[in-house]
Amino acid sequence: MDSDQLRGLLERVRSGDVDVDAAIDRLRHLPFEDLGYAKLDHHRSLRHGITEVVFGKGKTAEQIGAIAARLLEKSRNLLITRADPAAAAALKAKFPETEYFPLSGAARIWRDRTMNGKGKLAVVCAGTSDIPVAEEAQVTAEIMGNEVEAIHDIGIAGIHRLIAHSERLMEARVVVVVAGMEGALPSAVGGMVSVPVVAVPTSVGYGASFNGLAALLGMLNSCASNVAVVNIDNGFGAGYVASLINRL
Amino acid sequence: MDSDQLRGLLERVRSGDVDVDAAIDRLRHLPFEDLGYAKLDHHRSLRHGITEVVFGKGKTAEQIGAIAARLLEKSRNLLITRADPAAAAALKAKFPETEYFPLSGAARIWRDRTMNGKGKLAVVCAGTSDIPVAEEAQVTAEIMGNEVEAIHDIGIAGIHRLIAHSERLMEARVVVVVAGMEGALPSAVGGMVSVPVVAVPTSVGYGASFNGLAALLGMLNSCASNVAVVNIDNGFGAGYVASLINRL
Amino acid sequence: MDSDQLRGLLERVRSGDVDVDAAIDRLRHLPFEDLGYAKLDHHRSLRHGITEVVFGKGKTAEQIGAIAARLLEKSRNLLITRADPAAAAALKAKFPETEYFPLSGAARIWRDRTMNGKGKLAVVCAGTSDIPVAEEAQVTAEIMGNEVEAIHDIGIAGIHRLIAHSERLMEARVVVVVAGMEGALPSAVGGMVSVPVVAVPTSVGYGASFNGLAALLGMLNSCASNVAVVNIDNGFGAGYVASLINRL
Amino acid sequence: MDSDQLRGLLERVRSGDVDVDAAIDRLRHLPFEDLGYAKLDHHRSLRHGITEVVFGKGKTAEQIGAIAARLLEKSRNLLITRADPAAAAALKAKFPETEYFPLSGAARIWRDRTMNGKGKLAVVCAGTSDIPVAEEAQVTAEIMGNEVEAIHDIGIAGIHRLIAHSERLMEARVVVVVAGMEGALPSAVGGMVSVPVVAVPTSVGYGASFNGLAALLGMLNSCASNVAVVNIDNGFGAGYVASLINRL
Amino acid sequence: MDSDQLRGLLERVRSGDVDVDAAIDRLRHLPFEDLGYAKLDHHRSLRHGITEVVFGKGKTAEQIGAIAARLLEKSRNLLITRADPAAAAALKAKFPETEYFPLSGAARIWRDRTMNGKGKLAVVCAGTSDIPVAEEAQVTAEIMGNEVEAIHDIGIAGIHRLIAHSERLMEARVVVVVAGMEGALPSAVGGMVSVPVVAVPTSVGYGASFNGLAALLGMLNSCASNVAVVNIDNGFGAGYVASLINRL
Amino acid sequence: MDSDQLRGLLERVRSGDVDVDAAIDRLRHLPFEDLGYAKLDHHRSLRHGITEVVFGKGKTAEQIGAIAARLLEKSRNLLITRADPAAAAALKAKFPETEYFPLSGAARIWRDRTMNGKGKLAVVCAGTSDIPVAEEAQVTAEIMGNEVEAIHDIGIAGIHRLIAHSERLMEARVVVVVAGMEGALPSAVGGMVSVPVVAVPTSVGYGASFNGLAALLGMLNSCASNVAVVNIDNGFGAGYVASLINRL
Amino acid sequence: MDSDQLRGLLERVRSGDVDVDAAIDRLRHLPFEDLGYAKLDHHRSLRHGITEVVFGKGKTAEQIGAIAARLLEKSRNLLITRADPAAAAALKAKFPETEYFPLSGAARIWRDRTMNGKGKLAVVCAGTSDIPVAEEAQVTAEIMGNEVEAIHDIGIAGIHRLIAHSERLMEARVVVVVAGMEGALPSAVGGMVSVPVVAVPTSVGYGASFNGLAALLGMLNSCASNVAVVNIDNGFGAGYVASLINRL
Amino acid sequence: MDSDQLRGLLERVRSGDVDVDAAIDRLRHLPFEDLGYAKLDHHRSLRHGITEVVFGKGKTAEQIGAIAARLLEKSRNLLITRADPAAAAALKAKFPETEYFPLSGAARIWRDRTMNGKGKLAVVCAGTSDIPVAEEAQVTAEIMGNEVEAIHDIGIAGIHRLIAHSERLMEARVVVVVAGMEGALPSAVGGMVSVPVVAVPTSVGYGASFNGLAALLGMLNSCASNVAVVNIDNGFGAGYVASLINRL
Repeated sequence: MDSDQLRGLLERVRSGDVDVDAAIDRLRHLPFEDLGYAKLDHHRSLRHGITEVVFGKGKTAEQIGAIAARLLEKSRNLLITRADPAAAAALKAKFPETEYFPLSGAARIWRDRTMNGKGKLAVVCAGTSDIPVAEEAQVTAEIMGNEVEAIHDIGIAGIHRLIAHSERLMEARVVVVVAGMEGALPSAVGGMVSVPVVAVPTSVGYGASFNGLAALLGMLNSCASNVAVVNIDNGFGAGYVASLINRL
Repeated sequence: MDSDQLRGLLERVRSGDVDVDAAIDRLRHLPFEDLGYAKLDHHRSLRHGITEVVFGKGKTAEQIGAIAARLLEKSRNLLITRADPAAAAALKAKFPETEYFPLSGAARIWRDRTMNGKGKLAVVCAGTSDIPVAEEAQVTAEIMGNEVEAIHDIGIAGIHRLIAHSERLMEARVVVVVAGMEGALPSAVGGMVSVPVVAVPTSVGYGASFNGLAALLGMLNSCASNVAVVNIDNGFGAGYVASLINRL
Repeated sequence: MDSDQLRGLLERVRSGDVDVDAAIDRLRHLPFEDLGYAKLDHHRSLRHGITEVVFGKGKTAEQIGAIAARLLEKSRNLLITRADPAAAAALKAKFPETEYFPLSGAARIWRDRTMNGKGKLAVVCAGTSDIPVAEEAQVTAEIMGNEVEAIHDIGIAGIHRLIAHSERLMEARVVVVVAGMEGALPSAVGGMVSVPVVAVPTSVGYGASFNGLAALLGMLNSCASNVAVVNIDNGFGAGYVASLINRL
Repeated sequence: MDSDQLRGLLERVRSGDVDVDAAIDRLRHLPFEDLGYAKLDHHRSLRHGITEVVFGKGKTAEQIGAIAARLLEKSRNLLITRADPAAAAALKAKFPETEYFPLSGAARIWRDRTMNGKGKLAVVCAGTSDIPVAEEAQVTAEIMGNEVEAIHDIGIAGIHRLIAHSERLMEARVVVVVAGMEGALPSAVGGMVSVPVVAVPTSVGYGASFNGLAALLGMLNSCASNVAVVNIDNGFGAGYVASLINRL
Repeated sequence: MDSDQLRGLLERVRSGDVDVDAAIDRLRHLPFEDLGYAKLDHHRSLRHGITEVVFGKGKTAEQIGAIAARLLEKSRNLLITRADPAAAAALKAKFPETEYFPLSGAARIWRDRTMNGKGKLAVVCAGTSDIPVAEEAQVTAEIMGNEVEAIHDIGIAGIHRLIAHSERLMEARVVVVVAGMEGALPSAVGGMVSVPVVAVPTSVGYGASFNGLAALLGMLNSCASNVAVVNIDNGFGAGYVASLINRL
Repeated sequence: MDSDQLRGLLERVRSGDVDVDAAIDRLRHLPFEDLGYAKLDHHRSLRHGITEVVFGKGKTAEQIGAIAARLLEKSRNLLITRADPAAAAALKAKFPETEYFPLSGAARIWRDRTMNGKGKLAVVCAGTSDIPVAEEAQVTAEIMGNEVEAIHDIGIAGIHRLIAHSERLMEARVVVVVAGMEGALPSAVGGMVSVPVVAVPTSVGYGASFNGLAALLGMLNSCASNVAVVNIDNGFGAGYVASLINRL
Repeated sequence: MDSDQLRGLLERVRSGDVDVDAAIDRLRHLPFEDLGYAKLDHHRSLRHGITEVVFGKGKTAEQIGAIAARLLEKSRNLLITRADPAAAAALKAKFPETEYFPLSGAARIWRDRTMNGKGKLAVVCAGTSDIPVAEEAQVTAEIMGNEVEAIHDIGIAGIHRLIAHSERLMEARVVVVVAGMEGALPSAVGGMVSVPVVAVPTSVGYGASFNGLAALLGMLNSCASNVAVVNIDNGFGAGYVASLINRL
Repeated sequence: MDSDQLRGLLERVRSGDVDVDAAIDRLRHLPFEDLGYAKLDHHRSLRHGITEVVFGKGKTAEQIGAIAARLLEKSRNLLITRADPAAAAALKAKFPETEYFPLSGAARIWRDRTMNGKGKLAVVCAGTSDIPVAEEAQVTAEIMGNEVEAIHDIGIAGIHRLIAHSERLMEARVVVVVAGMEGALPSAVGGMVSVPVVAVPTSVGYGASFNGLAALLGMLNSCASNVAVVNIDNGFGAGYVASLINRL
């Protein structure tokens, strides 16, 4: 029941065509969720102000193209994660402003470049193999309107490199820390800064890293209290939640 | 090498008692960490403005009493988590303003009640058995200077109860969601609000809950992108990181 | 906004005191969930016709007594699972018709003994150590209005005993199968009957049973296609879902 | 020993050709299982009235064709799960009425379209990536004689979409719910309907979804009591057991 | 339907009181399992010639006494595993010949001391902490009629001790090897002897032994091909299966 | 130090060229292991009387050919497990009597066909997908000198099929049972026979079978006491240990 | 066959009482392991020069007293790990020089205080809860003849504290690092020093620490290449292996 | 702030251009880490004297070539682990002295062949399939300046082969032991030698080896106290840490 239908019903109540009991019954049994849908949805789009996001994995270049075209009718910005080069090429053919980030597979159409973040958002990663996940976080945070400070390759076994970047880290309003292997970097960064740290374990490693489980458990057990964790390799999620934090 | 020593050295440089090369050598080999310690520490205390926190588990009433006395010399607020009733009683005898929360075992001396949070911080839990963890999150958030909106017992299997609280949830600036069993509540809340959600799995459940593992995995795999997760039963950590977010 | 409020609003629309636009606005912004709550809740109580259920574990005798008293005002039947003997005694003192089943800890006040199930509901268990969980399933199914056929101690290593009960099994409309250790009984029963089988792994066993994990995995991988599984030791859940099936 | 042999033996008892002791011995030592086999088997085919089912994975197009031809001699309906396109093409060449569902790999020859289900059977899935498993459940349920209501893409993070379908869900006699990631949808649906819910975890997800383990554990720990679970990605099993339920 | 009933039926066939069709029907629908039950059961008792066994854990002294009395009516030997001292004392009061082994909790009434084993059965354990499980294996094997050679405390880290016992090991017809921690002893013994080795992992160890999981996995992955494994701490099962082997 | 060297030393003792103390010293410090090697090795070859075995996986056709040629100089029989078709073809070109079993990848040169087993050795498997592993067990047992009774496709969900084979099972002196999915067949067979059962879990299954873990745990927790278990998919190991048992 | 027997045999060879062939035969069949035992054992005691060690857990005060008395006859030093206070008191009554360390339960009789270590051995731990394990490592290293530098409470989240101790760390010849929770400290220390690091995960933590698993996996995946790991809570093992390293 | 800047500052202090307070402030806020970086780094290169190491996996031949060229400007030795043949060929074209080890994928440019190790470093492996990991350890240890004693194929099930090598093992100053499957070899070697043993589990095995987990757990639970463990398949790490030990 949309607005027009509701108006029609109420007008018929006013005119006496429908009596109050029938209207109550009608309203009670109306698919109330339609109302709810509109309401919730309105709130979401209003508050989030968010770029549309498509998970590209498992979708064909054609499918991604079609979805992109549809979404770009109502949104100025579009982020596609885990897109393969073919999908990216097809997208670029259709929308020439498409940027493609082959390490992470992120593709981005970024027309509305309003800054929503109130400060710097740092994205730190431990090793060069973690860069794809860090890149996904950065690309996400940027299109959601953040100035991103990217700091790569500062592992826990080289504390001096971490300290060398301490000033830049301390300037950030929220920090995304990406690490595989033992996943210790978020603890070290968390002990250094006084802002929220969003930790992303990566599946980088071998043997007893168990595809990121070691890093995940390490981060969940962080001795730094300002660390919260997202799923293994979930650079997008980290960039997203950090963006929400930086908008506050 | 503290400030005074450094000043002494530099004055001897100025007076010519120490030549430049010797000073460089001295500075190069000084335990640079002292400098760093002071610096970092200063930053931490300055920025965090945080209540001192003691993990009470495994400490005797006497130990807790002694630690509390020492910490309260330099901090106005003190939070002790997982304290048993005996420790709480001993603390109360010493510091009559001690509040004790027996469900979670949190004990609190809350003298400086400045509000640091810029908005409401909601703490939601799924079932009555999750209340102890939610309480720990609430007590933590309050002493860190937040107005906390506590909403209990709104499980995912009773969506209408969740919807009934949607307005209150939408007013929060950050939401802590505590849930055991399947740990699905953060996803539902995350889909409803547009602010960061800090999810806390609890060890509530039996059988294949594996002491909170089911809830933990559920939350890490949340289909809502605004969810970040802390350790199982870590109400304190959730309250802490949510407080940092709400201070931004 | 309850019925009365809605009626008031509509009557004011009819009388012209409230114009249509204001009413639309009011309706659009009313806490729609109240409507939903009532609606859903009504449906639930109507359709389920279910005994109230309380999870007794971790609740004191006093708490259980108070909850029971409150629930029995609106429901004729009450089931308390995992109640300890003290709670059961207190309950019996208050409600003399209380039945207590010490193996499973189920306590039951069963006043309305209407049969809702359309046929027999069999509850089978593999070993004597599985009986507590089977008992919980049986007590649940009975109070939900089923005639229960209980068959104990027919393990997979004594196929002749299983066959000896085949006639009774084949007469059931739905079968709950409870087993620990390797959890193979549901497969054997599932191959014998042509009705749904609800399998309950138990934590009975030691060593590599890993508190029921072996039985759980066994049941999930059943080569019989008519088997669905509930949580380890969840006799209540099995009795509940089997009761819903038997009511169809 | 089949009927004819048994008759022959008894007639020889009657005629005196075989004395009673010899007959007892013969009967006692006859492979009693033949009797049992016939009996049990008769019961199975009688009661199940079921389509023959072939697990296509790992079988060549030729093998599937041969098996199909043999089974279709005694059964009007045939379902092949997890068949690859080549096998499906070969099947279609032989049996032109073959339907093929490439997402799930199900192939179906559906000649006897008797409705065995007594009501609607809903198949719900959380995300588009879960559709292949949902499709397998639907194809299975249909060929087993059910009217299937398919509802796709109603995740827990978009509760309004779930509510929008609540009426359709409430009309079903049994609901299959398919979900990957955190596997929370069955709890939400289970709280909404009052009929049995058969939950299927899918291996959709990455990182800490551990190929469906997170969804599986979530479903086993559902706070809704009307949920029973089948193996990860087991759309067929869910459709099968739901069909048995809907036939009751 | 026992022998007498069957004889009666056949005699009525012979006398013409029952016609062939009725007899066929009767036989076809007789609870065939009774026949099977007798048959299978006879085979079991005949072939196994086995001591009755009771799992004592979780049974009261009274229950064990009652079960023992009943079983000793039809069996000369009785083994009770995991009995506590109280149960053993009660048993001894009733059956003075009861032997009790407090390390393993095994209690034994051993009247028929026929040797069934055709050779020596060795029971080897790695450390003193493994002795309880080894003792359970030994007590089981003895009461099942085997001469047991017990060799304790020959760990893999002291190869010389293992070699020192090589002669005794090589004389055994079957070897039970009990080990916790890394569970490597069965491989070493298996490489030394040319007879079957039954390996029992124990829950001895700490940390990453994970209650015997490390030992279990070690044994399952043994590089010696003559090793088969039973459950963690399952001394009884090892003694049992080794006894069956030694009887061949 | 081989026999000749030892003889030389002793002759020099006798001749007086080496005095007793020097000889003692020499003997004490001689690499005693050489002695041990011979001794142990002699025992092994003597007692095992075993076919040489090569694990073919990861070896090239050339490598396998070379190893085979070398081993066949001292052994009449040779078994190669997990050989790919190319290796088998190369082997056949060299040794025309090579038999190849493509399901399991076993290749066999079986010249000495002495029967070492004292009775029948049954190899049973649950489903058609388990046949490769069962075949490996059978091929192993045959070349080690056993008459093998192969029984395929008797799952636990079709008990009548199991019973139909009970006579054949009861005739075996040792039974290998191969099963994937829930791994319940060994329990059922174990309850039927009174001889040792060697259980082999297979990696057949999907989802929560976790590549054979479910079957493995099921077998380790078997309620039948005559079951011992080998590694997942280890048909060779099962055939080997069963052969050793059957030789006793 | 000990030295005297061997001498006797050789003298009879020399005298001609035993001919060479008989002696060869005798030597070949002598229980060669006796020789080996002596040899290996001699090497061990010679090279290790090690304190005797007793694992006290699960032993009574009387047992420990008896073992201690026996061992102290041949060794000047004795270490008992995981002894309870009662055992320690009994030991002290018997051997007044007994030192007891109640945190770790280590008891020590340290008479021969020779320094075997060639440099300092540092024992570092992350948090106060890790001290018991660190203490066990220290007590072990000391009695094995090392000067131990103990540094407590330098977690990874407070890098400045770690740096503050860098000089002391860099002076050590081998470092034991003890840490629970995320187990990141060994990586940080390993990156700082250029000597071997022996890492000990502790079971300190809760929730997803899974009793030390998180720390264990973290340490195994350390990005510092100079880290090797011992079992969870195995302070003794770390102290032992570090002592062996420091003796080189 | 490098040396020159520091000198400049101090000279301005001396000249009076900068007063003491300003200099303190400047020093206090200077990025102190630069100082630290130099210091630590100097220590590392000084003490380690180590070959540069590149993890080749996931890098292209071009990338590896470029990195190698850059590193060889400041280091005489270079080790690349896990390089594929193409990368090795490209490297060889550029640096003809490149050695390539195809089993492990190690590539080595070894110009400075100074021996840093003070004794022999033994690398032992259990089976032929473990050789690639052992080779990586050996290649690493050699380029770090050690004389390596390589002993292959001495499994725990053939103790005589282990004993045959005992003399060579006892001569080593540190032993690396590489083993898959049950991972028992380090315990056996550890019991034989009195020096540190660095254990490397390999992913060799199948089924319940779980890609090396069984071997890893076995080694962590070793009953020999002189064993420390590195990650699964981490031959490089073992060679590295053993080299550091051998340099002491």
